[in-house]
Amino acid sequence: MASSTRLNELPLFAACHLIRAGEISPRELLTDCISQIEQREDELGAFTTFDKNLVFDQLNAIEKLKPKSLLYGIPVGIKDIMETAGMRTTMGSKIYRDYIPGRDAVAVANLKAAGAIIAGKTESTEFAYYYPGKTRNPYSPQHTPGGSSMGSVAAVSQMMVPAATGTQTAGSVIRPAAYCGVIGYKASHGAFSLSGVCGFAPSLDSMGFFTRDARDLSIIRNSLLGAPAKPAARINANRIGLVRTPHWERAEQSQRDLIEGLCDYLADQSFELKDIAVGPSDGALTEAQISIMAYEGCRSLAAEYASSPELMSEQIKALIELGHKTSFADYRQAIALTKTWQQKLPQIFSEVDVLLTPSAPGEAPKGLDSTGDPIFNRMWTLLQVPCIHLPVSFGPNGLPLGVQLVGPFNQDDALIEISNRIAAAVREFPNGHPSE
Amino acid sequence: MASSTRLNELPLFAACHLIRAGEISPRELLTDCISQIEQREDELGAFTTFDKNLVFDQLNAIEKLKPKSLLYGIPVGIKDIMETAGMRTTMGSKIYRDYIPGRDAVAVANLKAAGAIIAGKTESTEFAYYYPGKTRNPYSPQHTPGGSSMGSVAAVSQMMVPAATGTQTAGSVIRPAAYCGVIGYKASHGAFSLSGVCGFAPSLDSMGFFTRDARDLSIIRNSLLGAPAKPAARINANRIGLVRTPHWERAEQSQRDLIEGLCDYLADQSFELKDIAVGPSDGALTEAQISIMAYEGCRSLAAEYASSPELMSEQIKALIELGHKTSFADYRQAIALTKTWQQKLPQIFSEVDVLLTPSAPGEAPKGLDSTGDPIFNRMWTLLQVPCIHLPVSFGPNGLPLGVQLVGPFNQDDALIEISNRIAAAVREFPNGHPSE
Repeated sequence: MASSTRLNELPLFAACHLIRAGEISPRELLTDCISQIEQREDELGAFTTFDKNLVFDQLNAIEKLKPKSLLYGIPVGIKDIMETAGMRTTMGSKIYRDYIPGRDAVAVANLKAAGAIIAGKTESTEFAYYYPGKTRNPYSPQHTPGGSSMGSVAAVSQMMVPAATGTQTAGSVIRPAAYCGVIGYKASHGAFSLSGVCGFAPSLDSMGFFTRDARDLSIIRNSLLGAPAKPAARINANRIGLVRTPHWERAEQSQRDLIEGLCDYLADQSFELKDIAVGPSDGALTEAQISIMAYEGCRSLAAEYASSPELMSEQIKALIELGHKTSFADYRQAIALTKTWQQKLPQIFSEVDVLLTPSAPGEAPKGLDSTGDPIFNRMWTLLQVPCIHLPVSFGPNGLPLGVQLVGPFNQDDALIEISNRIAAAVREFPNGHPSE
Repeated sequence: MASSTRLNELPLFAACHLIRAGEISPRELLTDCISQIEQREDELGAFTTFDKNLVFDQLNAIEKLKPKSLLYGIPVGIKDIMETAGMRTTMGSKIYRDYIPGRDAVAVANLKAAGAIIAGKTESTEFAYYYPGKTRNPYSPQHTPGGSSMGSVAAVSQMMVPAATGTQTAGSVIRPAAYCGVIGYKASHGAFSLSGVCGFAPSLDSMGFFTRDARDLSIIRNSLLGAPAKPAARINANRIGLVRTPHWERAEQSQRDLIEGLCDYLADQSFELKDIAVGPSDGALTEAQISIMAYEGCRSLAAEYASSPELMSEQIKALIELGHKTSFADYRQAIALTKTWQQKLPQIFSEVDVLLTPSAPGEAPKGLDSTGDPIFNRMWTLLQVPCIHLPVSFGPNGLPLGVQLVGPFNQDDALIEISNRIAAAVREFPNGHPSE
């Protein structure tokens, strides 16, 4: 069968096109995806819930429709903090291990309305905080895949599904995308409804998703918007601002070398590069994110903490305790600092079109007890701006490395557009993969 | 029994105190509340779901606990767009007429954790938009109670429960509070988790609740926060800014007279009054709210609209169509205008401590097909600031009139504090009730 592509390996945009053109059928695509899930799931642990019958029921329903919708017949993974009617949704918590929602989250309903098939629920850390699920890094089973959207990145990385959803409150989309070498997109805060998604910190919680090709992003984005959204006009924006952030020294040498090498490479292509600073140099935005996340998170989980503390991890209980100790005055100050910097961003984005900055400190750390450090994500989530991770290369341990691109608030389409051009430009960048 | 107060008539703060002191029991309070519900419900239509067995089950569980929590034994009504585990939640929509959630919304869970008893689910308009439920105005059955939180205001007004929850996307807390003569509080956007609440427009959706005494507000607020929140220090803030808004001429004469008379009255007490303007004089903030609500709302309801349009009202379908026609450019411009004015508010609130402005155009309009006009609410919801309605008087038709007080973003405790002082000051204000 080497001469016949396994359809699960197709990137989303290609699968969509081929289905609409009648070249492949949803059943063929789904069969190959399920075959891959069955082959790799034991080793990877990407899915919390995978029920072939529920998946084929959807396929049978889909086959009666005409392939006119954007995601017609495309299998997607759904992070297990998003409610799915009739399909177990555990929130990554023992408290909800048997919880079967009666209703779809808005995002899930919109994906279904666009023709998608819910392939299964993907592992999340507990309530999308730190305590890990069972997923392993596809590149090395003793390394974390990152969190919290760990199952979604593993499933996309290993071609079980062409796309999967995530959410980010600190670094839960961009960091695992970096650790598993997939494209991750965290939307502008508020861009998509989170109704039906387990909330953690309302000021921070943002929707995202994962794919294997930058061209896939606008397809899912338009589907999730649930109504026709015109693509942004193509702008020949090419000014990149390198943001080292106050945490640059916390990045591994290989990550810093990659970013600096990549900037030189892009400057040799058609891009203009300059250094730029965002936020106070003492990392106060990162601290503000930590305060807000604790203050709001402990309130979102107060009822579970009161009734079932024995079913909660020490990690999440420590966060709740931190939240209890965070005063309203400190919280308000953190919100005020955030607003100040949100107001400064338009000036920064008048000088550059996109920011380029680390996605993570480096390769996925060894060990499955932790999901790594979101230190390079917190400030961007706080500022509510859209972020995209692009995989670029591999580090000394053979694990993926890449970069984060950040755009202006609510200009997600423009960020996707420039990310596509950067992704195309770096295709020839030496990728350092040990096998190449 | 005329010499024995019916306990359902007690305001919340009094009932809490008496229960904790052992002077009355939760069972006595609940019995009187249920008796009132049974007497008045047929006429008022406040409840979508009221099941005495479910209520007494909660009471039986509560009685095994000690009365140490803030809302121990207090019956509350829950707006029917907030999910309640095991209790039907219809979203005010035929689509969900049989939907029984498996999980409580965070707000519901926090109220229960504070000891509250869920008395029932109160009527909401369809998806908290315009199409009305069955509730009638307690002061006149041919007049609307306002919307969308119509059942909650009627239940609180008629002493079925001491408090009930609401939400506001345009004017769904403040307007019905005004029409039914209860206290309404719409929190700062983001102040409470909306996880488990049917979302409409994430940039606008805000939590609120209703009581009969301004002293009740901080008790529920602290309970809903789900963690100890220190009350704001008492500030002797007394500078009131009268905001007529660009829509002043849309208010009825009786509403305008009340506001001007009240301002004169407060100026004779210990308050300083001045006129102040907020927002462009052409009402652009109101227009921006309409655009954002349509743009986001049509996306939240896209899946229902695709699958079950025959179960949706013409009103909500018109909103969805408007949302489809609202371009992303217009939406982004509306968000940008909003942020500009949010940034100007601190300057305004350096000149005054609280804004005083109409809650509604006047008395509740006649007819049950419409829920009245949120024109005096849209801009404040958009600006994400906390708002409180205080009932003050009665209009020419014998229906309630009052005023809206607006505070700085995230300074809800300070707004509650000054509202308590204003409420106390206006106790002697001539209230115009025909029976007095």
